[in-house]
Amino acid sequence: MAKESGKTTDRRLGGVFAPVATPFGADLAPDPRRFVAHCRWLLAHGCAGLAPFGTTSEANSLSVDEREALLDALLAAGVPADRLMPGTGCCALTDSVRLTAHAVRHGCAAVLMLPPFYYKNVSEDGLFRSFAEVVERVGDDRLRVFLYHIPPIAQVGFGPRLVERLRKAYPRAIAGMKDSSGDFGNTRTMLEAFAKDGFQVFVGSERFLLDNLRHGGVGCITATGNVNAAAIERVYAEWQGPDADRLQEELNVVRGLVEKLPVIPAVKAIIAAHAGDPGWARVRPPLVDLAPAQVEPLLAELRARGFDMPGLRAG
Amino acid sequence: MAKESGKTTDRRLGGVFAPVATPFGADLAPDPRRFVAHCRWLLAHGCAGLAPFGTTSEANSLSVDEREALLDALLAAGVPADRLMPGTGCCALTDSVRLTAHAVRHGCAAVLMLPPFYYKNVSEDGLFRSFAEVVERVGDDRLRVFLYHIPPIAQVGFGPRLVERLRKAYPRAIAGMKDSSGDFGNTRTMLEAFAKDGFQVFVGSERFLLDNLRHGGVGCITATGNVNAAAIERVYAEWQGPDADRLQEELNVVRGLVEKLPVIPAVKAIIAAHAGDPGWARVRPPLVDLAPAQVEPLLAELRARGFDMPGLRAG
Repeated sequence: MAKESGKTTDRRLGGVFAPVATPFGADLAPDPRRFVAHCRWLLAHGCAGLAPFGTTSEANSLSVDEREALLDALLAAGVPADRLMPGTGCCALTDSVRLTAHAVRHGCAAVLMLPPFYYKNVSEDGLFRSFAEVVERVGDDRLRVFLYHIPPIAQVGFGPRLVERLRKAYPRAIAGMKDSSGDFGNTRTMLEAFAKDGFQVFVGSERFLLDNLRHGGVGCITATGNVNAAAIERVYAEWQGPDADRLQEELNVVRGLVEKLPVIPAVKAIIAAHAGDPGWARVRPPLVDLAPAQVEPLLAELRARGFDMPGLRAG
Repeated sequence: MAKESGKTTDRRLGGVFAPVATPFGADLAPDPRRFVAHCRWLLAHGCAGLAPFGTTSEANSLSVDEREALLDALLAAGVPADRLMPGTGCCALTDSVRLTAHAVRHGCAAVLMLPPFYYKNVSEDGLFRSFAEVVERVGDDRLRVFLYHIPPIAQVGFGPRLVERLRKAYPRAIAGMKDSSGDFGNTRTMLEAFAKDGFQVFVGSERFLLDNLRHGGVGCITATGNVNAAAIERVYAEWQGPDADRLQEELNVVRGLVEKLPVIPAVKAIIAAHAGDPGWARVRPPLVDLAPAQVEPLLAELRARGFDMPGLRAG
């Protein structure tokens, strides 16, 4: 078992994290310049931290080399590692170990880890062993893993028994979860079972942010954090205040507008429009770019509600 | 569009292909020595060709580097490239391009390509573009792609319209399909639509071999080809003979025995037992090794039916 020494109190993560959208050049290669600029903008406009290489980031459409190079570019540009929670969970154990070790070695606050998602109906033992192998092989006391539960896409997910086994075996390394099940009942189950012991639960959509905070959760990691983090952060900051429900309602309206379209290309199209940089909108296959006729009504509706991304154009 | 010059007649592939099981050392690293020995044994015992890096191979549990190194080991050992159809389809476009280019450059007969399988409910356009990008980027006239349709696991698959678009755009490169849907109705649809134009359809289980051959298909690529290829090959050789149905029935019985257990670890356990090499049975997480108490009854039932893997022990 990895050494888990001492009883130091962990810094708790929380607030709004953006699963950073990944910009591509015309040749579909990741564009580190645009990527770094967007990350800086996010940290200056409401994001407590960044979760590059999530689902919104098209991370699984990138090679391991491409993911490492983008993280290196962020760190070289001075984006602080302790505000980063890169996604590192792959189908292949060796890939997950490599990306996780790379993130930990560079001081990242945590990693967000998908289960291996090719085989379906895998056993709890097999998933336990997958995570145990990563923790053991990385073998670094600083490792903090957030389990990435997104059954609508990965199909493979985490039940409470698996979480309990992992927490028992690695109480410090298994730090929390991102719940993208879209079912707050599931989030509540996790919170009730594990939050009292310091397990940090993020929800995968700001729709559930206020509910999550009221039940002991710590924040959200959400696609629309790429474009609307300041407003989402206000709910996080004022969740105990008198306006919390109204502010949450406003978030839901914006989320609902974005969700009328496929969310990943929609988020990138919003960034592209506000940055004055049409190339930002590109996605890698198997995703497809939206047509202008799809994007324009969304942008118009957002404008009508006063939505803005100030300062984005300057990069 | 990739140059598709001339009107040379392609060699048609056919017969029994094994999606070669991948042996691991005690540290779960792939073991090229055992791998090469098994591949040689397969080619000498009924396999017309090999499809390393399929689902049975735990290919998605391997890094791209590990897959390239194993293919290099096979070729360095003198296994003929023109009998190889390595799996090269990954979630990331850049990984699929890299593995496919590597296989083509080394003269492999074809590649077996999964669609990108992380995102679900992707559009036909997105899948078309995924394959088009691979074909264009590899840019090699020798490329022959077999589309790997395995919806029970990959979830993402190929409908007839997508196949038709790909065949129209790349009539030589899109050479055929492996249908692991488990639904011969789907196979028949593909055969009726495309076989007359030379589209080569393999089924993903020998259960459907005789049906496939009778409807214009070319063979099977099957997990149990790792252990029972000679018997399966006999159905292929004698499919028009008087014993075909009886031989098919015998295949089904053996297949049924193996399918009582999770098929991938069961196949590896059968190899381990017949090679006298318990380490052969290891699987990478998220799969789990079978317990001896699970394997023994299977081995006993196989022995009782006269099943053997002659010459395997010698490697």
